[in-house]
Amino acid sequence: MPDVRYFPENVLEPVIREFLCQAGASPDDSAQTTKALLHASRTGVDSHGVRLAVYYARLLRSGRLNASPHRQVRHTGPATALLDADHGLAHPASYLAMNEAIALARNAGIGAVGVMNSTHFGAAGAYALEAAYQNMIGISTCNAESLVSLFQGSIPFHGTNPIAMAAPVPDSNPWLLDMATSSIPFNRVQLYRSLGITLPENVALDSDGQPTRDPQKARFLEPLGGPEFGFKGAALAGVVTLLSAILTGATCDPDIPSGPDAKGPSNIGHFFIALDPGRFVGQTGYRTAITHYLAALRGSPARNPDQRIMAPGDREWAETEKRARQGIPVDPDTTAALGL
Amino acid sequence: MPDVRYFPENVLEPVIREFLCQAGASPDDSAQTTKALLHASRTGVDSHGVRLAVYYARLLRSGRLNASPHRQVRHTGPATALLDADHGLAHPASYLAMNEAIALARNAGIGAVGVMNSTHFGAAGAYALEAAYQNMIGISTCNAESLVSLFQGSIPFHGTNPIAMAAPVPDSNPWLLDMATSSIPFNRVQLYRSLGITLPENVALDSDGQPTRDPQKARFLEPLGGPEFGFKGAALAGVVTLLSAILTGATCDPDIPSGPDAKGPSNIGHFFIALDPGRFVGQTGYRTAITHYLAALRGSPARNPDQRIMAPGDREWAETEKRARQGIPVDPDTTAALGL
Repeated sequence: MPDVRYFPENVLEPVIREFLCQAGASPDDSAQTTKALLHASRTGVDSHGVRLAVYYARLLRSGRLNASPHRQVRHTGPATALLDADHGLAHPASYLAMNEAIALARNAGIGAVGVMNSTHFGAAGAYALEAAYQNMIGISTCNAESLVSLFQGSIPFHGTNPIAMAAPVPDSNPWLLDMATSSIPFNRVQLYRSLGITLPENVALDSDGQPTRDPQKARFLEPLGGPEFGFKGAALAGVVTLLSAILTGATCDPDIPSGPDAKGPSNIGHFFIALDPGRFVGQTGYRTAITHYLAALRGSPARNPDQRIMAPGDREWAETEKRARQGIPVDPDTTAALGL
Repeated sequence: MPDVRYFPENVLEPVIREFLCQAGASPDDSAQTTKALLHASRTGVDSHGVRLAVYYARLLRSGRLNASPHRQVRHTGPATALLDADHGLAHPASYLAMNEAIALARNAGIGAVGVMNSTHFGAAGAYALEAAYQNMIGISTCNAESLVSLFQGSIPFHGTNPIAMAAPVPDSNPWLLDMATSSIPFNRVQLYRSLGITLPENVALDSDGQPTRDPQKARFLEPLGGPEFGFKGAALAGVVTLLSAILTGATCDPDIPSGPDAKGPSNIGHFFIALDPGRFVGQTGYRTAITHYLAALRGSPARNPDQRIMAPGDREWAETEKRARQGIPVDPDTTAALGL
């Protein structure tokens, strides 16, 4: 991409932190949000990465995000809690909630924390990984404004509703799944528009709710599985809405204010589960089994003999290595806004 | 289908129960197994329904299933447990494990129970529903012998690895998801063989690992998402293997003995989670929100104006109503074996 510049993380980190502080966020909120944005940029999810700092700063300044939230955790059982995020930045609320789930799981074996009165939390994988780095299996979900049809539906209903899960692996990067429940994210449509590329079949719909491969005409997305098996993708999106919004008192996807004229807080919800992998067959058995499983998976033959089979997360870890060498790409608008 | 006969549930139930007792199962194990088989048959999942009674009876008589298992629950935390199923019938072990998870969740808010030394548990939805009927959200998973390729893989690796979730709905049947992580189950291939119908695109592979639509040539399945987005289906299959086998000490999918010459116990694993929906925004908020959500979903417009949008489970509940009127279809081999 032309005019993109590359920066090492240790250059970007203090700049973004200070930029968010200048917009009114507390030093701790700024640090946690920067951590989540850098996770996304580092692993190649640029749509949820450092460029969003500019967007969050605008929301903080406009008052749509509460710059001084009073976050409250209410324990509702030995293994459950609800966090009211008070309409502040979602990233610090999400790390707080996952760490609460981890603390519950250290005692109970599993812990679940819902979050209400929040907003977009960026890349779901950031919080699942937070658990894996503390030797827990982590699951994170977030509902979002309508952008994906139901199975055979003609209008958007669910959000792209991501599901992430991470599991610790001995002496290695974690196993990491971070997926939208649509086949593609909407920014793929926007990218294909700018590149003039035709979309894959069965991933997007036009304004009449008819399938289209023209990114200029695409207005919303099909659930994973498309017109034949999209009942599975739509149901997985429903799992996310159930956990993130229906359990927590957050707003259901079709009722979330969206678009350029949206006003007021969005009250998006999240859900976090931490699970201690040592509580079933035991820590040693778990470590042996996941090592054996991943070796078998990565050694399994590929359809194309020139390719290798990758485990969930391997693409992200390869990208992380590459970006540690080359730096993190930042577009011109963002470099200008951040004063880089 | 020719020669299929229809029986009311209350005729089938005592016949199957007695048939399993005759094969050596205890009265309680026979009753629990019959309950799970009738759930599958009632909701239209005939592949996992009453016809399997004959198969389980054969396994009991041959000793591959332990007719007198000593099942042991080991508690490992306030919200976790591991059940050793001792190679007995998987259905009673699965109901026991889910009920243990429910008991844990009644106290802790959430409960998770892994099962090892088990075998196929039939329709995953049966156990998720067990939770929903007790006002809990239930999740159930089971790994299985290799039958589905990895993303771009040329041989079978994961099983069809189902994920089920059920959630209670006020004054209504539960919300119910019960899906294989492949696009189709393998018995769809067998059905299409017998009917001479071409398979959908991107669901099956031939013995060389190449895509095929010919059911005669199909040997194994693609993960949900196919050759473009199958990394999602394959990762979801991995979630099931992680929870059901890697956590529990069960055998990973590619190492499960399979085929007509398979000997000895399969040591398949399961995983069950129960979650109290009242522990976050509260029981009243949950009931209001899920009612509102399902009304919005079912009222959303369909692409084809003659169709209605269905919620996960609606197809199963419609089939249940139909079979309550017409009876449950049983094929000639099974009617003969059961002496009906």
